[in-house]
Amino acid sequence: MAVYTEVTDDELSSFLARYDVGTLVAYKGIAEGVENTNYLVQTSTARFILTLYEKRVSTSDLPFFLGLMEHVSERGVSCPRPVHARDGQILSEVAGRTAAMVTFLDGFSVRKPRADHCHKLGRALAQLHLATGTFNQSRPNALGESGWRPLFEKFRSRADGIAPGLQSLIDGELKALHSSWPSTLPTGVIHADLFPDNVFFLGDSLSGLIDFYFACNDALAYDVAISLNAWCFEQDGAFNLTKGRALLEGYDSVRRLTPEERAAMPVLARGAATRFLLTRSYDWLNRPANAIVTPHDPLDYVRRLRFHQTVHSIVAYGGSEGR
Amino acid sequence: MAVYTEVTDDELSSFLARYDVGTLVAYKGIAEGVENTNYLVQTSTARFILTLYEKRVSTSDLPFFLGLMEHVSERGVSCPRPVHARDGQILSEVAGRTAAMVTFLDGFSVRKPRADHCHKLGRALAQLHLATGTFNQSRPNALGESGWRPLFEKFRSRADGIAPGLQSLIDGELKALHSSWPSTLPTGVIHADLFPDNVFFLGDSLSGLIDFYFACNDALAYDVAISLNAWCFEQDGAFNLTKGRALLEGYDSVRRLTPEERAAMPVLARGAATRFLLTRSYDWLNRPANAIVTPHDPLDYVRRLRFHQTVHSIVAYGGSEGR
Repeated sequence: MAVYTEVTDDELSSFLARYDVGTLVAYKGIAEGVENTNYLVQTSTARFILTLYEKRVSTSDLPFFLGLMEHVSERGVSCPRPVHARDGQILSEVAGRTAAMVTFLDGFSVRKPRADHCHKLGRALAQLHLATGTFNQSRPNALGESGWRPLFEKFRSRADGIAPGLQSLIDGELKALHSSWPSTLPTGVIHADLFPDNVFFLGDSLSGLIDFYFACNDALAYDVAISLNAWCFEQDGAFNLTKGRALLEGYDSVRRLTPEERAAMPVLARGAATRFLLTRSYDWLNRPANAIVTPHDPLDYVRRLRFHQTVHSIVAYGGSEGR
Repeated sequence: MAVYTEVTDDELSSFLARYDVGTLVAYKGIAEGVENTNYLVQTSTARFILTLYEKRVSTSDLPFFLGLMEHVSERGVSCPRPVHARDGQILSEVAGRTAAMVTFLDGFSVRKPRADHCHKLGRALAQLHLATGTFNQSRPNALGESGWRPLFEKFRSRADGIAPGLQSLIDGELKALHSSWPSTLPTGVIHADLFPDNVFFLGDSLSGLIDFYFACNDALAYDVAISLNAWCFEQDGAFNLTKGRALLEGYDSVRRLTPEERAAMPVLARGAATRFLLTRSYDWLNRPANAIVTPHDPLDYVRRLRFHQTVHSIVAYGGSEGR
């Protein structure tokens, strides 16, 4: 959410000279991403986003993320496309940081998505899953089911400081998930963080997906479960069945969920709620004293989790049980 | 340097609907300004900067700053121009904050200005002074000579914590300035903060001036003295006479300094160095413990001040003593 590394005009002009993108016209540090520095760069030919990778993203994963964005954008998924330097490279260095430049995507995220946004999101998610099917790199999901218990142990003793009973709730849920977590669903590269902030719309169209820095290999239907959590609950915690139906119909219209994926949706949705409950709780307990940015409230995901615990069929999310 | 107030897509679209600027295509929070929130807004017709005024800038001064930008831009000074809503208003409200939108200025600031940049800066500064001559609002300089002693008293007892001897240096300098500060020079509205970050270049041309939020009434030549401090010293503290000459020649080519202004330049330059030494020292002592942004080093201005103390003629800055 800040510019951690300042790039001077000379550094940026030298950097751009290695690309076939025209000359520098303007650039602004932008408040985007959590721990990287991002600049919006306007050249005489187009606009780009230049990212300087600071800390959180391991640079060894960057070829995966950038390769994925290039792979899916070549297959019709609208997302930022890495720009190659004249020597063919995507990764470079600016101001002492590993850096990459991607194309600028018109559009903006919608704070309060409607059902038609959810339908378009469902379609785009399925298109992404079809496009990643031919991507030949892989990356394990560090925040997948096997990572939840170790993450919880880092703050288990302080969990009730967020809300009384949270420790016991998570404890019980992790046990339940561990014994019921599906292992035979179709897998592939998933986005894993497709919240409304990471989806741009322009007019009535979905204009693109951004922020692939959590992408990893996992069950494709788990990505759908994440999106149900991220798009279909109202601010008061109520599940909006119309939005759920729209999202699932949108997905099915491009890639139809299998009967096994449908059957697993309730447990996948519980798992997705638990994953965000865990990271939000951890971030909440470890927030800097005078942080400018308030971390997301973990309790939003307690409400979601409690809802999912009452669900035993995808029908409750607006889907149908199968063929 | 951050987005303090988040503007949602709905809020921004409603805001833009009150203007004749087309529809929203993209927007990004940008890391610009010190205590305001700024967005770069792309519409279907043009780019704009939307500023939400947070704390430091008193909203009662905004008609002065925005009126000044409009006044000088109408007179050929390239700077962001406030955009009027359909009802004629410039000031509006977005997300609970007073807000204004200005045109986007191509170009970017130069970290290491060369002599030709200084010449163009000098010309632009003189053009600004001619243009402000017909501006009929005024605003006292809270950081002018009469404000220095009260500001110093806020940290006098802690000054030697920055550098041994600083208290005595400033004490003596304030006494000297108080007895020698000129009061009969030509006055008008000055920019008062025309550092290299606030001047954009594009190719070989100066493309515009930004950040008028310190503008106030004071001696015009004091603005020149501020620029000599801000543009003509090297990183090691040495004064670059070539740059000084270029700046003064550029200024004189548009508005020739009077003999009195020339004679006063050494004391004005001392005063300007003292003003930035004072605010930087204050900011240094009052920086937040874990601030992302390191405040400017006050000692840069100790070095400048010591140089000016040895100067007794504008000739030492590259100027000539009179007609």
